[in-house]
Amino acid sequence: MKQSLRTLIEAHNEKARGPLQSDYAHLGEQLARRGVDIDAVRQRVAAFGLAIPSWGVGTGGTRFARFPGAGEPRHVFDKIQDCAVVHQLTGATPSVSLHIPWDKCSDWSELRQTAHAQGLSFDAINSNTFSDQPGQAHSYKFGSLSHTDAATRAQAVEHNVECIEIGRLLGSKALTVWVGDGSNFPGQSHFRRAFERYLDSSRQIYAELPGDWRMFLEHKIAEPAFYSTVIQDWGSSFLAASTLGPKAQCLVDLGHHAPNVNIEMIVSRLIGAGKLAGFHFNDSKYGDDDLDAGSVSPYRLFLVFNELVAAAHEQVNGFDPAYMLDQSHNVTDPIESLMSSAVQVQRSYAQALLVDRGALDAAQEANDALAATQLLQRAFQTDVDPILQRVRVDAGRAVDPVVAYRASAYRQRMAQDRPAILSSGGGIV
Amino acid sequence: MKQSLRTLIEAHNEKARGPLQSDYAHLGEQLARRGVDIDAVRQRVAAFGLAIPSWGVGTGGTRFARFPGAGEPRHVFDKIQDCAVVHQLTGATPSVSLHIPWDKCSDWSELRQTAHAQGLSFDAINSNTFSDQPGQAHSYKFGSLSHTDAATRAQAVEHNVECIEIGRLLGSKALTVWVGDGSNFPGQSHFRRAFERYLDSSRQIYAELPGDWRMFLEHKIAEPAFYSTVIQDWGSSFLAASTLGPKAQCLVDLGHHAPNVNIEMIVSRLIGAGKLAGFHFNDSKYGDDDLDAGSVSPYRLFLVFNELVAAAHEQVNGFDPAYMLDQSHNVTDPIESLMSSAVQVQRSYAQALLVDRGALDAAQEANDALAATQLLQRAFQTDVDPILQRVRVDAGRAVDPVVAYRASAYRQRMAQDRPAILSSGGGIV
Amino acid sequence: MKQSLRTLIEAHNEKARGPLQSDYAHLGEQLARRGVDIDAVRQRVAAFGLAIPSWGVGTGGTRFARFPGAGEPRHVFDKIQDCAVVHQLTGATPSVSLHIPWDKCSDWSELRQTAHAQGLSFDAINSNTFSDQPGQAHSYKFGSLSHTDAATRAQAVEHNVECIEIGRLLGSKALTVWVGDGSNFPGQSHFRRAFERYLDSSRQIYAELPGDWRMFLEHKIAEPAFYSTVIQDWGSSFLAASTLGPKAQCLVDLGHHAPNVNIEMIVSRLIGAGKLAGFHFNDSKYGDDDLDAGSVSPYRLFLVFNELVAAAHEQVNGFDPAYMLDQSHNVTDPIESLMSSAVQVQRSYAQALLVDRGALDAAQEANDALAATQLLQRAFQTDVDPILQRVRVDAGRAVDPVVAYRASAYRQRMAQDRPAILSSGGGIV
Amino acid sequence: MKQSLRTLIEAHNEKARGPLQSDYAHLGEQLARRGVDIDAVRQRVAAFGLAIPSWGVGTGGTRFARFPGAGEPRHVFDKIQDCAVVHQLTGATPSVSLHIPWDKCSDWSELRQTAHAQGLSFDAINSNTFSDQPGQAHSYKFGSLSHTDAATRAQAVEHNVECIEIGRLLGSKALTVWVGDGSNFPGQSHFRRAFERYLDSSRQIYAELPGDWRMFLEHKIAEPAFYSTVIQDWGSSFLAASTLGPKAQCLVDLGHHAPNVNIEMIVSRLIGAGKLAGFHFNDSKYGDDDLDAGSVSPYRLFLVFNELVAAAHEQVNGFDPAYMLDQSHNVTDPIESLMSSAVQVQRSYAQALLVDRGALDAAQEANDALAATQLLQRAFQTDVDPILQRVRVDAGRAVDPVVAYRASAYRQRMAQDRPAILSSGGGIV
Repeated sequence: MKQSLRTLIEAHNEKARGPLQSDYAHLGEQLARRGVDIDAVRQRVAAFGLAIPSWGVGTGGTRFARFPGAGEPRHVFDKIQDCAVVHQLTGATPSVSLHIPWDKCSDWSELRQTAHAQGLSFDAINSNTFSDQPGQAHSYKFGSLSHTDAATRAQAVEHNVECIEIGRLLGSKALTVWVGDGSNFPGQSHFRRAFERYLDSSRQIYAELPGDWRMFLEHKIAEPAFYSTVIQDWGSSFLAASTLGPKAQCLVDLGHHAPNVNIEMIVSRLIGAGKLAGFHFNDSKYGDDDLDAGSVSPYRLFLVFNELVAAAHEQVNGFDPAYMLDQSHNVTDPIESLMSSAVQVQRSYAQALLVDRGALDAAQEANDALAATQLLQRAFQTDVDPILQRVRVDAGRAVDPVVAYRASAYRQRMAQDRPAILSSGGGIV
Repeated sequence: MKQSLRTLIEAHNEKARGPLQSDYAHLGEQLARRGVDIDAVRQRVAAFGLAIPSWGVGTGGTRFARFPGAGEPRHVFDKIQDCAVVHQLTGATPSVSLHIPWDKCSDWSELRQTAHAQGLSFDAINSNTFSDQPGQAHSYKFGSLSHTDAATRAQAVEHNVECIEIGRLLGSKALTVWVGDGSNFPGQSHFRRAFERYLDSSRQIYAELPGDWRMFLEHKIAEPAFYSTVIQDWGSSFLAASTLGPKAQCLVDLGHHAPNVNIEMIVSRLIGAGKLAGFHFNDSKYGDDDLDAGSVSPYRLFLVFNELVAAAHEQVNGFDPAYMLDQSHNVTDPIESLMSSAVQVQRSYAQALLVDRGALDAAQEANDALAATQLLQRAFQTDVDPILQRVRVDAGRAVDPVVAYRASAYRQRMAQDRPAILSSGGGIV
Repeated sequence: MKQSLRTLIEAHNEKARGPLQSDYAHLGEQLARRGVDIDAVRQRVAAFGLAIPSWGVGTGGTRFARFPGAGEPRHVFDKIQDCAVVHQLTGATPSVSLHIPWDKCSDWSELRQTAHAQGLSFDAINSNTFSDQPGQAHSYKFGSLSHTDAATRAQAVEHNVECIEIGRLLGSKALTVWVGDGSNFPGQSHFRRAFERYLDSSRQIYAELPGDWRMFLEHKIAEPAFYSTVIQDWGSSFLAASTLGPKAQCLVDLGHHAPNVNIEMIVSRLIGAGKLAGFHFNDSKYGDDDLDAGSVSPYRLFLVFNELVAAAHEQVNGFDPAYMLDQSHNVTDPIESLMSSAVQVQRSYAQALLVDRGALDAAQEANDALAATQLLQRAFQTDVDPILQRVRVDAGRAVDPVVAYRASAYRQRMAQDRPAILSSGGGIV
Repeated sequence: MKQSLRTLIEAHNEKARGPLQSDYAHLGEQLARRGVDIDAVRQRVAAFGLAIPSWGVGTGGTRFARFPGAGEPRHVFDKIQDCAVVHQLTGATPSVSLHIPWDKCSDWSELRQTAHAQGLSFDAINSNTFSDQPGQAHSYKFGSLSHTDAATRAQAVEHNVECIEIGRLLGSKALTVWVGDGSNFPGQSHFRRAFERYLDSSRQIYAELPGDWRMFLEHKIAEPAFYSTVIQDWGSSFLAASTLGPKAQCLVDLGHHAPNVNIEMIVSRLIGAGKLAGFHFNDSKYGDDDLDAGSVSPYRLFLVFNELVAAAHEQVNGFDPAYMLDQSHNVTDPIESLMSSAVQVQRSYAQALLVDRGALDAAQEANDALAATQLLQRAFQTDVDPILQRVRVDAGRAVDPVVAYRASAYRQRMAQDRPAILSSGGGIV
């Protein structure tokens, strides 16, 4: 398959070569007029990569229903295969983020080799204490790391430690901890005590981190708990991360905030405090909708990257965020959504690289709000597709990943190779 | 069991008789000072009933997980049995609202008789075109009544017509239609055309309504569709109901609105336009959280009832709303939640009956905002428990339904009688 | 001044001519590859115009403070002068929308001639019953068109009729009615009666509309009333407009909705129902922030225009919206904000014109969500600046209006010519 | 006047004595059944006091208009007189919180004596760097403590230091700092640098705090800045307070958060971190509406007090919050609103004191969500008016403050004594 895909990509790219050359050249001219070296931008984009969540290659769902797609992956090896396709076509997703126990397998070494053979490495590993597994001694119905029962907490801690072990075998360097702990009724939970229990449990996990690992704390305002959550916002996440120590940092999922909240400001605060772990990219209109990154609010995604590029530009101490997609693909082919989302994230990065930092500093200093915002708009309004396409073509990826993917009939083959096994019940995302 | 429950209730109530007498007498005095006849209020509360959704007696869940409870109902007869317990202990829930196909059974006549024998009748019947059923010809992945494909729409129409048939057999007088139709991406759906298709399909269902039936249209801002929904708010619901005809009305689920929206105002608008179908009561803090009615925003529930009592007081033409609970009980015993929620709804109704309408009219007319709001507060702050308790005791129900229920050990018995069959996957609510 | 401005523009444009020619040619090539005729797009953009609100040329403020700028307009003739500058530099704003009584003057004929001489006509006229004027008989503290007091309502009706009279003298063809009526406390207002009074008053105004006029009803969720408003959303607006008659339509101000609400869906519903009056363009992050159009959510603005272009494309019956900016310029030079906002609106229009309607129809019909959304993204991501610049240059306007404006030193001259008279109290917007 | 008010109160109370005795006795019985000693609750309520903001006795407004009331205070001495009336009638508001420069006067010693003579002391003093004062050297249009210009920052620091000086003269023990600093456009402000500047300025103010003073940092999501604010949420406030030192704490204004945010959780986090400064009580439905405390969401207010009572019950180290009302009275007599709001706050406190802490702990420990929430509901649903009334009557205050106030005709007298001087422009709150 891989050979045939490569051949297909070459043919696909061949047709686009002429227009791309012309577009890239003209964009280069335009950027040069603005004092920007297009090749320097291209090189930075080429060096950028983000992780795919292993669960993202399956069709997602809601509590109401899940409508499975054809050829869904049946186990972690299938997932790796799908992730490889995304990377082969886009070149933007060189790593995979696993979720335990969903991705458990009997031979981690084989998994690692399989992934490496496809050019994939392993990003942060994710624990799961928000659902019960068959045979589990204690239920997480009423919480995990913050549960009132010590044995349940111990079980949750142990699971996280196991995740670290697995991650170590795979080459991961971080553990991402998101818990569903919270409450559905006023009074159900003692907020301060629950937080203290969360901290106690987290300290035990933190103590098990290898020296070069980080622990990513993920906050979320609601769902699955609908009255309160134990790490409800970046404030609680920051408080926890500060208490735990320097290896603990705060992970920002774009869909985990209250309506209207200025997320780029949160990103900036975490950068300033040296506590930005990284991102779960997605988009949302109502809540944790887990829509494709940049599909609803592309300017917001750009503004987040504007903070990131500024931090890198200013060489903020310790700035080293991790990038991951975290989406639920309910109505699209997950591979297509992942590819187009990865490209959207790249696009935002490329656009943010175009911002004239010197001019922006000057406008900010002079309180010239209009000039400042126009500098951002100018960057955002630039059609950077020629840059993204060149990066892909240079690396042997597809000019238009979705078009090439459809031409490959990969999904149709998988529909035959992988008999459906997943239920159509409520989807887990 | 029923006999033993009755005996248990009597013993339970016996102990409370003295305090209740004293409390009721004192509240009667207080209300008399305010010109309110406590017995008249009591009688109106006694005449009030609301429907239980059949799915409400099972443990709910989220897309992340469902944590089943013990002794969950396995089929519609078990559900009726649970609903009967709720009604036997509270006297507030004389009807059940079924959901097809979840509640399908082989003998509707037997079901009707079983329910009647427990003192239960059947409220509005609910169709389901938001999930696929095994063996279904066309998938609802991309919509149902508004689907682009005519055959899928026809199938959805036919399902609704079948629901009418079933409801007719059971004595229902209304069909509630909520669809998951919508989109997850800008551009995915042609808004105007989708709405027209929805109307076309709905017209066909409407045409099949028996003469004394109503069709309840339920709007919802989001979920399971996360960019747009076809009936996203009361405006679209009203537009559809007006187009369909007088039997079509708008159902208000308290959790289906955008943040900050003034729901009691919407209720008032629908009353004024003669289009208020009724309610799905629940509470929410973030979205369609389906929390217990009145558990987060009890004053909002009261303000809704203030509109209802005012409309009845002013004898608004055609005012005849249906009342139903619609909640997801994820962390409580569903029977306990249903009982306490039913009592909360009764409480709001009783409190709204205490509002001095004449004084309120005068304050409103004089723009005496403070006096007006204090009149509402005075009613809301009244502890009407003695009234609710007397209503229950008079009807042979439990003074404290939850206490009596726990004493009955009903759940423990069911845990033995009903082996678990439901998965712990994402919950459907 | 005008001559000097023209000279300045010519010099300014001269320098940009080369790059523009190259950019336009290359964009033309790119669009041709996508089957789009750039010149056809350009012509449609050239024919597009939007109105400036007369109050928009003054510095806005909040309830906390207003920080006046230099050279603010002192009266309606100054405002016309500023509006003329905006139009002269952008060519995008050929009309002005007045606000009565703020813009009252002693000679309407002179005003009309002055405006016409500058190439400006008069768009919808706005009444004001949300603040009291010196010497006014009845206060609007507790409402205007929906006030409980008949004399106050009559006064508000009369004011609106006077606005129609003035508008007639100026050549306006529509009256925009936004009222601050509502309540700050539960119970303060009888929702149904207040709405009926609003309708009664509005009927009287409606009756005075000349045959070729329209009446624009503007809804708003909150502010200045903070518990309820009488026309709180498009549903109430639609109900009122339907009751009043065909000349009454619903005006959409982008900042007047609850959080998360899908505004493009509302636009679509109003188009479908033949009730879309038009727009007050601005942007917002938290509430009615009145920020510059497209400055926070440019994709949302594009999605609104996507609905408008689709409606025009499909020749929806009676589709004829009015376009106006309505912003509060608190920290920028109002002229600069108006110019850049007008260009942003043009940009969204131009981008929406690039959407491949046929392909979109096909993708929607096939439920190919990814392809559909990519078609919108492709249009939105196109840098249409060369088209907008060509439209301006062709019409003798400035390639870069803000740069040309700054070069003109207009504001500095006004700072000398117009001594400050406005207070720094809370700003009225 | 004071003598006559005392006489009036006595006559007013006399009529209510019988019913109150009966009601208090019966409530005492009810509470005794629940194991609560009514007298102990009464004593704690009697010891509770909250501050009135001096600006609260004037009629508030919005950016659209201010509709002045009759007899508004003309200067700080008039304000003290009005505050004294509130306290004389309710006994709940023994202190006043001043706002500089609005409350500047020529003789602070006289002001202090005047207040003391009325039984009033001075709570936290508030600085104002969100509006410009006549003759001010540097404008706050673009910020104050975080301004890019050092001289402007120095001026803002100096103003705060002056506030400390004034507060020292008056007996205040805290400085409340709320700034309007922020931005209206993406890009306008460099988030990290602005925060650093804010910290630098705040450090200088902090350094000037007397040993027994605290510095209260007030966060706010938006308004007057509508894209970003420098202290946008409790996370930034906490970060700033932690950086500054132990005297700096975080003040919670109930209306300053994003929609849906769980405020009681924030309160709990700040308590746990030893950083809760205190409160600005008010209520809101849409944004910073500054409505009367408890008028829209009384249960939320109760839930906040549930956290406070729990913290006191558990003797959390350093727990010592300050309580203040902060409301905008746009449509009511400010004195009436302040009185009824103070009583609402007392009510929430009294209700929270009724929660059975032992039973709640047990229910929480057992994850008995329903029992836990019912314990809160039981407390909230209790009509504690007899307790509040007894507290007032015992202290020589009015059983019903609003009724007594209206009977006193105080407002009518003030309307004569105080000729209107305030404009009807946008209101400052």
